[in-house]
Amino acid sequence: MSGNTLGHLFRITTFGESHGPAIGCVIDGCPPGMLLSQADIQPELDRRRPGTSRHVTQRQEADQVEILSGVFEGRTTGTPIALLIRNTDQRSKDYGNLLDTFRPGHADYTYHHKYGLRDPRGGGRSSARLTAPVVAAGAVARKWLHEQHGIALRGGMAALGATEIAFEGWQHVAQNPFFAPNTSQIDALEAQMDALRKAGDSVGARIVVEASGVPVGWGEPIYDKLDADIAHAMMGLNAVKGVEIGAGFASVAQPGSVHGDELTPQGFRTNHAGGVLGGISTGQDIRVSIAIKPTSSIRIPRDSIDLEGRPVQVETHGRHDPCVGIRATPIAEALLALVLIDHALRHRAQCADVRVSMPAIAASAAA
Amino acid sequence: MSGNTLGHLFRITTFGESHGPAIGCVIDGCPPGMLLSQADIQPELDRRRPGTSRHVTQRQEADQVEILSGVFEGRTTGTPIALLIRNTDQRSKDYGNLLDTFRPGHADYTYHHKYGLRDPRGGGRSSARLTAPVVAAGAVARKWLHEQHGIALRGGMAALGATEIAFEGWQHVAQNPFFAPNTSQIDALEAQMDALRKAGDSVGARIVVEASGVPVGWGEPIYDKLDADIAHAMMGLNAVKGVEIGAGFASVAQPGSVHGDELTPQGFRTNHAGGVLGGISTGQDIRVSIAIKPTSSIRIPRDSIDLEGRPVQVETHGRHDPCVGIRATPIAEALLALVLIDHALRHRAQCADVRVSMPAIAASAAA
Amino acid sequence: MSGNTLGHLFRITTFGESHGPAIGCVIDGCPPGMLLSQADIQPELDRRRPGTSRHVTQRQEADQVEILSGVFEGRTTGTPIALLIRNTDQRSKDYGNLLDTFRPGHADYTYHHKYGLRDPRGGGRSSARLTAPVVAAGAVARKWLHEQHGIALRGGMAALGATEIAFEGWQHVAQNPFFAPNTSQIDALEAQMDALRKAGDSVGARIVVEASGVPVGWGEPIYDKLDADIAHAMMGLNAVKGVEIGAGFASVAQPGSVHGDELTPQGFRTNHAGGVLGGISTGQDIRVSIAIKPTSSIRIPRDSIDLEGRPVQVETHGRHDPCVGIRATPIAEALLALVLIDHALRHRAQCADVRVSMPAIAASAAA
Amino acid sequence: MSGNTLGHLFRITTFGESHGPAIGCVIDGCPPGMLLSQADIQPELDRRRPGTSRHVTQRQEADQVEILSGVFEGRTTGTPIALLIRNTDQRSKDYGNLLDTFRPGHADYTYHHKYGLRDPRGGGRSSARLTAPVVAAGAVARKWLHEQHGIALRGGMAALGATEIAFEGWQHVAQNPFFAPNTSQIDALEAQMDALRKAGDSVGARIVVEASGVPVGWGEPIYDKLDADIAHAMMGLNAVKGVEIGAGFASVAQPGSVHGDELTPQGFRTNHAGGVLGGISTGQDIRVSIAIKPTSSIRIPRDSIDLEGRPVQVETHGRHDPCVGIRATPIAEALLALVLIDHALRHRAQCADVRVSMPAIAASAAA
Repeated sequence: MSGNTLGHLFRITTFGESHGPAIGCVIDGCPPGMLLSQADIQPELDRRRPGTSRHVTQRQEADQVEILSGVFEGRTTGTPIALLIRNTDQRSKDYGNLLDTFRPGHADYTYHHKYGLRDPRGGGRSSARLTAPVVAAGAVARKWLHEQHGIALRGGMAALGATEIAFEGWQHVAQNPFFAPNTSQIDALEAQMDALRKAGDSVGARIVVEASGVPVGWGEPIYDKLDADIAHAMMGLNAVKGVEIGAGFASVAQPGSVHGDELTPQGFRTNHAGGVLGGISTGQDIRVSIAIKPTSSIRIPRDSIDLEGRPVQVETHGRHDPCVGIRATPIAEALLALVLIDHALRHRAQCADVRVSMPAIAASAAA
Repeated sequence: MSGNTLGHLFRITTFGESHGPAIGCVIDGCPPGMLLSQADIQPELDRRRPGTSRHVTQRQEADQVEILSGVFEGRTTGTPIALLIRNTDQRSKDYGNLLDTFRPGHADYTYHHKYGLRDPRGGGRSSARLTAPVVAAGAVARKWLHEQHGIALRGGMAALGATEIAFEGWQHVAQNPFFAPNTSQIDALEAQMDALRKAGDSVGARIVVEASGVPVGWGEPIYDKLDADIAHAMMGLNAVKGVEIGAGFASVAQPGSVHGDELTPQGFRTNHAGGVLGGISTGQDIRVSIAIKPTSSIRIPRDSIDLEGRPVQVETHGRHDPCVGIRATPIAEALLALVLIDHALRHRAQCADVRVSMPAIAASAAA
Repeated sequence: MSGNTLGHLFRITTFGESHGPAIGCVIDGCPPGMLLSQADIQPELDRRRPGTSRHVTQRQEADQVEILSGVFEGRTTGTPIALLIRNTDQRSKDYGNLLDTFRPGHADYTYHHKYGLRDPRGGGRSSARLTAPVVAAGAVARKWLHEQHGIALRGGMAALGATEIAFEGWQHVAQNPFFAPNTSQIDALEAQMDALRKAGDSVGARIVVEASGVPVGWGEPIYDKLDADIAHAMMGLNAVKGVEIGAGFASVAQPGSVHGDELTPQGFRTNHAGGVLGGISTGQDIRVSIAIKPTSSIRIPRDSIDLEGRPVQVETHGRHDPCVGIRATPIAEALLALVLIDHALRHRAQCADVRVSMPAIAASAAA
Repeated sequence: MSGNTLGHLFRITTFGESHGPAIGCVIDGCPPGMLLSQADIQPELDRRRPGTSRHVTQRQEADQVEILSGVFEGRTTGTPIALLIRNTDQRSKDYGNLLDTFRPGHADYTYHHKYGLRDPRGGGRSSARLTAPVVAAGAVARKWLHEQHGIALRGGMAALGATEIAFEGWQHVAQNPFFAPNTSQIDALEAQMDALRKAGDSVGARIVVEASGVPVGWGEPIYDKLDADIAHAMMGLNAVKGVEIGAGFASVAQPGSVHGDELTPQGFRTNHAGGVLGGISTGQDIRVSIAIKPTSSIRIPRDSIDLEGRPVQVETHGRHDPCVGIRATPIAEALLALVLIDHALRHRAQCADVRVSMPAIAASAAA
C-alpha cells in the first residue's frame, strides 16, 4: 500500500537506500520445491552491476546476494525468501552539498514535500541502486518460468538518444556494454557516449524486452490486464516516461484491417498486439518497449532553489551513469519476469480446472 | 485479485457484460460528508454515451445511473456507493454467428482459453461498454478532487489515425464530436471518418489528458508511483497500446540538460516530467498521452479460425465505433481522477502529520 | 481497504443499508464453468430470512436475489457475479426518534464519530440485514466446495443464553426455529423466548459450525492462517464477541499430553485442534464456535445521551430479533464457506504442482 | 497473499526460519519524522527473549536487532524499515530424528502436505521464534501510538492451565517470570511449572491484553472491523485457539439489559463491549482475551506416524517452553499495537476531514 511491494501472489517487498547499510527484498509466494541457490541469482545481479565499463557509474559494488530464508537443502520451501545485499562503496560526502538543494529532474523536491524529510545520500530510496533487489527477485521468477513453462526472456537497447539501433540479433546483446542487439554500430555508440561524458551531459534510451513461450490465457479481464500490470511495473522503474505493448503508438495510424492480427490454423499471421488481447496473453511473444529519460545528475550547471526557496545553481559531480538506460535491460527483463510469474499463479488460482478442447495452434504462423 | 477492482483506498469494483441485464460498480472508500446525487454523475455518463453522432456506434443506451447505497439525505456516508446501469438496447443476435469464431484483434480467443467458455454477446465482459461504470465512478472522484483540492481535469484527441490535431484550446473540446481541442480541422476529421465508415475499416487515435491543481507530494516511492498507477489504469482501458507521461518517448532523444525541469523561486521553468518526479507529484500539471488502437470489429473480411481450428473468414456487421478513440476522452479523464483520489487518500494515511516549512513555489514559472 | 470486502481470491464486496433501495454484493474470482442459477442461492437466503417464526423480527422481506452478471447460459464465466436484493419492507419511521440519540450496544455512537454522519434508518450499514448478501455469496462458495471437493458444511445453536443445548443430531437443525441440533429441549427454548419477549429483554447465543471433507493443506503459514481468517470472518459478523477453533478456551486447562491429537495409520485419534495445525487444515473436520451477544435493541429503557451530550432514555420499539443468534447459523456457515473457498484458490495458486508421496490417512480414526 | 504479511497501511512482512541464518521483517507504511533507534526496539525483544527463567526454553538468543533501512539521522523517513535478527544458537541436530515423523499437535503434518517438503529444524517457519520480528515491529507501532495519541498497552497472564490468576495490579507484571498481574500466587505458579517440567508435560494459558487511550472512531464497518482484525492477528499467533473481545463468551448468558453499555454525559457506565461497537472503537479500553494451547513438544511419548504412514512413537527432548503462554504477553501486546496503528492510518485516509461537533464524553464513567 505504501508502494514498496510489487505483485500479488508472487510478491516482492524491497527495502533499503543507496547509502544505507544494506538493500534487499522479501519474496513471498514462490512455489515450493524449486532448486535455488545464490548461484541462480548472482549472474543476473552481475549483468546489472555498476562499474563494469567506462560508460556507467564507477561505483564499485560487489552486489553479493545472501539468501536468508525460504530455502532448505537447496529447495524453496514455499515460505518467504529474503535476499540481502550489503552496500560497500557508499561515499556519502559526494552528496553532502546537495542536502539543501533540489536537483532538477530528481525526486529531491517531491520526497521533501511528501515526507517532510529525506535521506539525501545518493538519492536515498529513489536511487537506481534499488533496482538490484528487483533483479535478484527477477532471477528467481525467471528460473521458475523457464522450468515450469519453458519461457525465455530477452531484451536490449533499441535507441541511444537520437540514435536508432538496428536489430541484428539477440546473441549480440551480451557482447557489448550497451546491451545492444547489434555489432555494426557499437563503435559509434562508444564514441557518442565518450563525447557525452566529455560534455558533462546525459542522454535517454529506448529499451525493448520480450518473453517467448508464455501460454495463452494469462492475465485478468479489466484492471489487472497483463499489459496493464506490465505498464505499471515498467513505469515504476526509475526514469521511465513511456511504455508500449506491441505496435504501441504506431497503432494509432494503423487501420483496423492491418492492426488486427489474423489467425490461421498454423497460428497468428502478425503480432501487432504484442502478445496480449483483452489483457490476456495470446501465446505469442510478449513485446514491450520503454522510454528512459536522460540521467538528471549532470555536470552542466542547472538552475534550482534551496530549502528557503532562494535561487541556486546545481552541478552534480558524484559517480553517475551518463545514460541510465544502459543498465536498464536486465532490470526490465526482471520486471517482466515478475509480472509474468504473478499472473501465472493468479491464473492457476482461478482457472486451474479449466479444460479447453480446441486444437492447439502455433503461437505464430509468421516467424 | 481477479482483475475487476481498481484502486486501494478509493476502490471501485465493476461488474457486468455488454448484453447482460445490467452493468455497474461498487465504490468503497469515498470519504463521508460530500454532497452527491445522480445529477453529479449523469453528465459524465452522457459525454461517454453511444449514439450521439454518426461517427460512433448507433447502439441506443440511456445509461441512466441509479445510486443504490452509500448516500443518506444527499451526502456520502463513507459506506459503499453502489451504482447500477440497466442495459436496454441489447441485440444479441447481431453476434450470434460469432459464437464459434475468434474475431481478429478481439479478446475472444484469449477469453476462450483462459476461462474455457465466454459470453460472446457484444464482447461480453471485454466490451467497451464496461467503461460506463468507470466514468460514473470517476465523476464521484472528480467532484471530491475539485471540492477538496480545486483540481481540474481535461482531455482531448491529439491524433486521429495519421492526422495530427493541432491544439487550439480546451474550450473547443465540447464543441465537436471528436473531443478535439480544435476548430479548424473538424471538417477534415468528419470527412476522414465518413470515408473510413464507407470503406468498412477503422482507425486509432491518440488522446491527451491533464490534471491541474494536484498538490506536490502525491504518489508512492517505488512500485506504486503516481505515474506507474496512471500507466496501469490507462493500459487497462480497452484498446490502449501505449502510455506516456510528460515528454514520454520524446525524452529518449533529449539531453539531460534539456529534459530536467529547472526550478526557480517562481516555479518550474518547464514540464518535461509531466508533473511527476520519482513517482510523486510536483505540483505541476499531470500530463498523460495514450495510444488507442483501431477498432477490431470491421466490415472488411479477415482470416481467422473456428473452435475446431479450421480457417474461417470473419466480417463484423454489428453496431461498432469505427474509432473507439473518439469516446475515450471522458473515460481517460475518469481513470486519471480515480488514480488521483486513491493517491490523495494514501498520502494522507501516511503523511497526514507532515509539515514542510519551505516557502511555496508556484507550480510553473513558464505558463 | 475500507472494510467492505472479504477474501482475496474469492472476494466479495457488499453494499447497501437496511432501509436503502437495495443491498447486494459483487463476487470476484469465482472459477468459471460452474452451473449456477438463482435457485442455487435462494434456499440459503430463505433459511436466513426474517419473519419466519414468532421468535425473530417480523420484518417481511422476500429477499429475492437477482443475478446481474457473471453467468452465461447457466454457467459461471469467471467474471464478477453481481447479486442484487431489493429492500421492500422498510419502515424508516420506526427509527425516526432515534436520529439524535445513541442506542446502548449499537454502532450509532461509533459511526457518528467515525464518519461525522450516519444513516440511522434501521441501523443503516451496521444492520444485521447486511448479512443477506453474505449468505447469497456463501451459497455460491458452498456449491463449488461441494462439487469440487465434496465438502459439507453444517451448524447449529449450542447455547441460548444460559441454556446449554445438548447435541442430539445435525438432522434436527432444520426441524425447529432455533437451528438447534436437538429435539428434546425445543419446548423449553420456545418458553424461554416467549418469556424474554414478554420482558422486553434479549439474550445471546453460542453457535457451532463445522466443515467436513476439507483436504489437508489449506491455509497459509503465519498471518493468514486458516483459523486466523476464520476468526476474522466470524468476529466481523454482527454481535460476535468470541471465536474458538477446536477445543478453544478449554485447551487452556488441557495438558499437552491430552491436547495434541495423536496420529495413527488409520487417522487422527482426536480433534482438539479443530482441524487446523499451524494454520493449515489437517483433513479433519474444521470446528468453530462463536459467542453472539444479546440484541441491543430492547424495550427496557436504558440510559444514553443525545447529540448534545445530554442524558436521555432510550426504548426501542421497532421490529427486532430478541436473539440475533437464532438466525446466525446459516450466516456463520456462509462465512466459513467463503473463507474455505478463498484458501482453496490460494492453495492451488502456490502449491498446484506439489506432489506428496506419503500414503493417505483417514481424516479421523475416532469417528 | 501467501500469508506472511500483516496489516494494510502499516504493513509488516516477516521472513525466516527457526534455525536458518536470520529472521526479520520489513515494515512498510511507518509515518515519517518519528525518532527511532535500536534502543526503542530492543527492550521489547528482551521481554520476549528465551532463556530468561527456568520456566522457558533454554535456547540462548541475544535477539539483537539491526535497523537496515528507513531511518536517516535518527528519524523515520517514510520508506520501508527492515529489521534483521541473526540466529545464533541453532542446534539443528536436536531435531534430526524428527525429520521423518510428524509430532502430534505440530504443523509438521500440515506443512508436509501443503508444500511437499518442510524445513524440520526447530519447526522451521512455524516456530514460535518467528514472533520475535512481530515484537520488534510492534515496538515501532507502539512508539507511534504513544507519541501521536497517548495510547498505552498492557497485558498479562489470566490463567495458567486450570489455575485462574487473580488480577492484583498491572505493576506486578514485570516482577515475575509469568507476566502475571499478581504477587500472591507466584510461588504456587512456580511450583506448578516445576512439577510440570518434572512430568515432561505442558500446559496452556489465558492471556489478557488491553489498550487505553484509543480514540473513538477507529475501525471499518463490515469485514475489517477493529475487533475482526484483532481476532485475525491473535488467532494467527502460534498456539492460540480462541479470542474474546470484552465480555466474550460470557456475553452469551447476559441479557441485553445488562450487556449493552449505557452512556452518560460522564462516559460509558460499563465496558462489556471491550471498547468496540459495530467494529469501531468507542474510546474505552480495548480488551482482548486469548486462549493458548499447551506446548505440543513434550517428553511424554505420543503415538504418531512416519512418512510411510507407519506407526511410531515420538518423544521430544529439544529445548522447549513447557508453557508457550508464558512468553506470549509481549507478543500479544505487539499484535494489538500493529492492528491499532493500521486502523489509525486507515481512519485518517478516509475520514481525515470529518468534524464531529458533539461534546466529548469521557471514555468511562465507571473507572
